[in-house]
Amino acid sequence: MLYIKQLLQEGKTIEGEVTLQGWVRTFRSNRFIALNDGSTIHNLQVVVDFENTPEETLKRITTGAAIEVKGQVVESQGKGQNVELQASEVIILGDSNPEEYPIQPKKHSLEFLRENAHLRVRTNAFGAIMRVRSTLAYAIHKYFQDNGFFYVNTPIITGSDAEGAGEMFRVTTLDAKKPPLNENGEVDYKKDFFGRETNLTVSGQLEGETFAMALGKIYTFGPTFRAENSNTSRHLAEFWMIEPEMAFFDLIDNMNLAEDFIKSVLKYTLEVRRDDIEFLNARFLEEEKSKPQQERSSMSLIEKLEFVIHNDFKRVSYTEAIDILKNCNHNKKKKFQYLIDEWGVDLQSEHERYLVEKHFGCPVILYDYPAKIKAFYMRLNDDGKTVRAMDILFPGIGEIVGGSQREERYEVLKQKIADLGMDEQTLWWYLDLRKFGTATHSGFGLGFERLVLFATGMTNIRDVIPYPRTPQSAEF
Amino acid sequence: MLYIKQLLQEGKTIEGEVTLQGWVRTFRSNRFIALNDGSTIHNLQVVVDFENTPEETLKRITTGAAIEVKGQVVESQGKGQNVELQASEVIILGDSNPEEYPIQPKKHSLEFLRENAHLRVRTNAFGAIMRVRSTLAYAIHKYFQDNGFFYVNTPIITGSDAEGAGEMFRVTTLDAKKPPLNENGEVDYKKDFFGRETNLTVSGQLEGETFAMALGKIYTFGPTFRAENSNTSRHLAEFWMIEPEMAFFDLIDNMNLAEDFIKSVLKYTLEVRRDDIEFLNARFLEEEKSKPQQERSSMSLIEKLEFVIHNDFKRVSYTEAIDILKNCNHNKKKKFQYLIDEWGVDLQSEHERYLVEKHFGCPVILYDYPAKIKAFYMRLNDDGKTVRAMDILFPGIGEIVGGSQREERYEVLKQKIADLGMDEQTLWWYLDLRKFGTATHSGFGLGFERLVLFATGMTNIRDVIPYPRTPQSAEF
Repeated sequence: MLYIKQLLQEGKTIEGEVTLQGWVRTFRSNRFIALNDGSTIHNLQVVVDFENTPEETLKRITTGAAIEVKGQVVESQGKGQNVELQASEVIILGDSNPEEYPIQPKKHSLEFLRENAHLRVRTNAFGAIMRVRSTLAYAIHKYFQDNGFFYVNTPIITGSDAEGAGEMFRVTTLDAKKPPLNENGEVDYKKDFFGRETNLTVSGQLEGETFAMALGKIYTFGPTFRAENSNTSRHLAEFWMIEPEMAFFDLIDNMNLAEDFIKSVLKYTLEVRRDDIEFLNARFLEEEKSKPQQERSSMSLIEKLEFVIHNDFKRVSYTEAIDILKNCNHNKKKKFQYLIDEWGVDLQSEHERYLVEKHFGCPVILYDYPAKIKAFYMRLNDDGKTVRAMDILFPGIGEIVGGSQREERYEVLKQKIADLGMDEQTLWWYLDLRKFGTATHSGFGLGFERLVLFATGMTNIRDVIPYPRTPQSAEF
Repeated sequence: MLYIKQLLQEGKTIEGEVTLQGWVRTFRSNRFIALNDGSTIHNLQVVVDFENTPEETLKRITTGAAIEVKGQVVESQGKGQNVELQASEVIILGDSNPEEYPIQPKKHSLEFLRENAHLRVRTNAFGAIMRVRSTLAYAIHKYFQDNGFFYVNTPIITGSDAEGAGEMFRVTTLDAKKPPLNENGEVDYKKDFFGRETNLTVSGQLEGETFAMALGKIYTFGPTFRAENSNTSRHLAEFWMIEPEMAFFDLIDNMNLAEDFIKSVLKYTLEVRRDDIEFLNARFLEEEKSKPQQERSSMSLIEKLEFVIHNDFKRVSYTEAIDILKNCNHNKKKKFQYLIDEWGVDLQSEHERYLVEKHFGCPVILYDYPAKIKAFYMRLNDDGKTVRAMDILFPGIGEIVGGSQREERYEVLKQKIADLGMDEQTLWWYLDLRKFGTATHSGFGLGFERLVLFATGMTNIRDVIPYPRTPQSAEF
């Protein structure tokens, strides 16, 4: 089969009659079809020989209709394309009633398109976003595989509820209305499908560590779930996450990897999907125009991508960051919602954005956080109060990566679990890693949709995943 | 960092002192460490200068211990390797008490290793299996991306319960014991997280179709769930599935793609993971020896892979297959559990295996099945009783692919949905595809673990996924 992408690349070198299938984007002057088959953002101009095409067929060439066209590739007389297709025949495969078809050749609101998520990918913007998403996913696999990492599918349904990364969804086959009860009058999960209470995973990290401590370098890339009732433009109940985990890596190795990884996958995607990103760049600039001058981005989408690819991320300890924030005019003038007054507080999105967007003007890696505000598995520093954690903060996005060196010492980890009142029993296998051949190791998690947001210049996370899952919404 | 894979490849060209980290597989004669770091199936022989190494250190070099070694790469005097490491220093990173460590250098049963799934990947066999799995996954992405397909993440949590592919898991945040009830005394799913009853997906196909009808060629690769109480060596409650979907493809195009796809990914994996597959090949032959002569495979694992890669799959209609089965001696002598007496019956695993293993001796594509035994979305043939379905059957595995051309006609599909008593309302978006720009399209699903089974020569599906989920079992 011949696709428009290939036709536009090879142009006039294609001789003889060709056959193409696709969907009509527009049809004007009873003569010019803009045909798209999804292979590229670009439409092929098809010139219909309207005098020799039945009136009945011409009428059915409407926006959204599926057609097959046969014809010759010829040099284009019009602007905007080098070649076009001189059609000898147009066959209607599937009609699209203009009175009913929701996707018309005009600007639709993003809200309207979300309600028609099954059709929105037929628009230029969403076609581009989803192609970029696909290429970015592939870039991630390629990067890791080229660098000696093994892909691991950690479990989605998990009996382990100790990760503490957030609220969980229960997975069950018990009767919803009248679940079986045990002698104590509690739900009898022994009768559930897995013989225990199970949830959807909030992170594959702990299982990922077990594989890193055998295969050396691994990564996960799979769906992850948070049952949090937060209806924001940055949160989804179901999202995809990448979690590499590396034996013998300390926190510095971890930072180096994360920075190189992000730069590499963005670079690959910008090269391979240049056309789509140029379209999204134009869209981004158009959106910016509608904002007040002082809120506009100083860079275009492509400039932002180039900037990240070519500049070092700034590495700053939590302690330094607190100093900067405490003493900045923004804090002194009480412009933060949460004022920074002492070491130890968790940073809010407004602080992260201040550091990245106002103070440093580049991606920032914050590290060595207070142990109290971070997870149990992070490596305690010798100061006894900070852990070897790192977060990467991006302009416009906030936290895009969260990682750490892991606590590799059995006794220290055991004590931490006890201190937090967590159940050591359910973590027996995780503790085993510290009992048998333990070693320094590190890893991080990257929310895939946040990276897609950055790469596409979109601002709502619901627009960069095919079918968003959010509180009160699981249509399609 | 230097890994053993690279060291063995580059051999003596590596000059000066090198540093390596890994885990001790064995330590013999107080002198020879077999060191593995997961990068390859091969161990590096490390020769310890035991006269200049503290007794205390030598004692701690035990199976499973993590160590760091420094030394020179030298030509090996021993058999089985070209180079070895002459150690100048051995540092113990993490001990492994031989009295407690479950993974000893001896043959463990697969059952025992399943109970220690967090450690089994430290064995040669599971290291090889999991590396093959990783490469096979990458081969799949690479094949599709190289051929103009876009990767789509269809939703895992779904409100659509109409796919009919199997029993589903419910996903909920409602109180397990006392769920809220509505006026009719039924569970009030309006109060659940998504405002409706939701389940884990059994297939991404329907959502995949929506993207194919915009982007042309797409594929999914994600986890899929079946709440079926079947405790067999071929079923998992959670497994990974690949589902390509192509606009403008008919059933023949679909078969051609599926065949080329399987051959290509196996070929790539055999090339890239030759070492691991050679190890698994030897393991396979060893296992075969313990079987009675007549049950042994006529081919080794590598021969089976080569056979599939280089031979055409046999294409046979369901009607022809029924003729073959009805008239075969096996059926006449009543050796099938389910005898084949008439057209229209569903084929059991015993019939599929007879066709593939006894009759044809090669992979078989069965097509044009009776409509009654297949799903609602399959394209009805003009005979009015068969559908454009196809299954690919593999020796030793059975069904590995199930696909079809999809019913693209609005009225026919609507009628089928009505006839089956399904809810048209929940499928409004799926029907929309037939209303707006419909066209011939096709796709298939391939169970990833079944392909890994075939590529590794393993026989139980629980041994080719990191942490298997089966009835009554969700440990780790």
